[in-house]
Amino acid sequence: MDLNALHKLGYGMYIVGSYKDDKLNGQVANTVFQITSEPPTVAVSINKANLTHEYIESSRVFSASVLHQDTPLNYIGDFGFKSGRDVDKLKGIDYKIGETKAPVFLDHATAYLEAEVIQGVDLGTHTIFIGKIVAAEVLSEDLCLTYDYYRQVKRGTTPKTAPSYIAGEKGGK
Amino acid sequence: MDLNALHKLGYGMYIVGSYKDDKLNGQVANTVFQITSEPPTVAVSINKANLTHEYIESSRVFSASVLHQDTPLNYIGDFGFKSGRDVDKLKGIDYKIGETKAPVFLDHATAYLEAEVIQGVDLGTHTIFIGKIVAAEVLSEDLCLTYDYYRQVKRGTTPKTAPSYIAGEKGGK
Repeated sequence: MDLNALHKLGYGMYIVGSYKDDKLNGQVANTVFQITSEPPTVAVSINKANLTHEYIESSRVFSASVLHQDTPLNYIGDFGFKSGRDVDKLKGIDYKIGETKAPVFLDHATAYLEAEVIQGVDLGTHTIFIGKIVAAEVLSEDLCLTYDYYRQVKRGTTPKTAPSYIAGEKGGK
Repeated sequence: MDLNALHKLGYGMYIVGSYKDDKLNGQVANTVFQITSEPPTVAVSINKANLTHEYIESSRVFSASVLHQDTPLNYIGDFGFKSGRDVDKLKGIDYKIGETKAPVFLDHATAYLEAEVIQGVDLGTHTIFIGKIVAAEVLSEDLCLTYDYYRQVKRGTTPKTAPSYIAGEKGGK
């Protein structure tokens, strides 16, 4: 069994935002996908250890911003390898408060969605939050960043809390 | 609200296979994603109206073959726009019977996975089948087909039963 086959699965790259009380946070995610077209629903897979998971569970809303291909690695690194428990990830970042009151991240974004959670599916280490889309906007026609491009061309790595982390792979920490 | 934002979400393109009794079938899917790394689990979203849905519900196994970028449109069309109820989709197709006894499709594939279903999540029109990976192989290092490339470059269209169909979009039938 060669689990490198998992690296052939295709994903985009996203910043997922949410809030809890008066606190805002966001994190990198690669598993954001449409569930149904009517009503339009979208799902995101989030590790239970992440602060954003706690925020989505509390507010029952999330945003997802789609990153373009030229997104700087340090932008992804700041959202993906740091925790909102340790640093204020929103410092110096361009965002707006969306219709759901979740932060919508605008830097390097080609589009965003906002959703109200209608179901949370417990999958052990992760929860898939399924949401009804309540806001959506296209921001640019730039090429979208794929997870493959991030790994192969930009040489980006994957934190251990990501669903797509493979134990022992080079660069996985 | 501009639901074209949904077109910015990133996916790969896959042929998902399963069986029921002595019958085999496969279909195109774009929503295949890793759930957790330990144990390695993978999920696929399948429309309840599709024959492959019935087969996965019966056998509780599925395969997923990852298509390369140069996969001919007619190969995708035969798997995506026809039903195994009307035609034998496996006629003239290169496949093997996998460890799970599901058909594993080898034409134009860069990799494949086989999984045993551990959970089915009912999402109205679709079910997400979550499976423990029991077989996986990398077949080539060719570029993988993305859904975006399929739509933008190959000018492929999307059947109404796909999760990523948007009502009224050009080419959506």
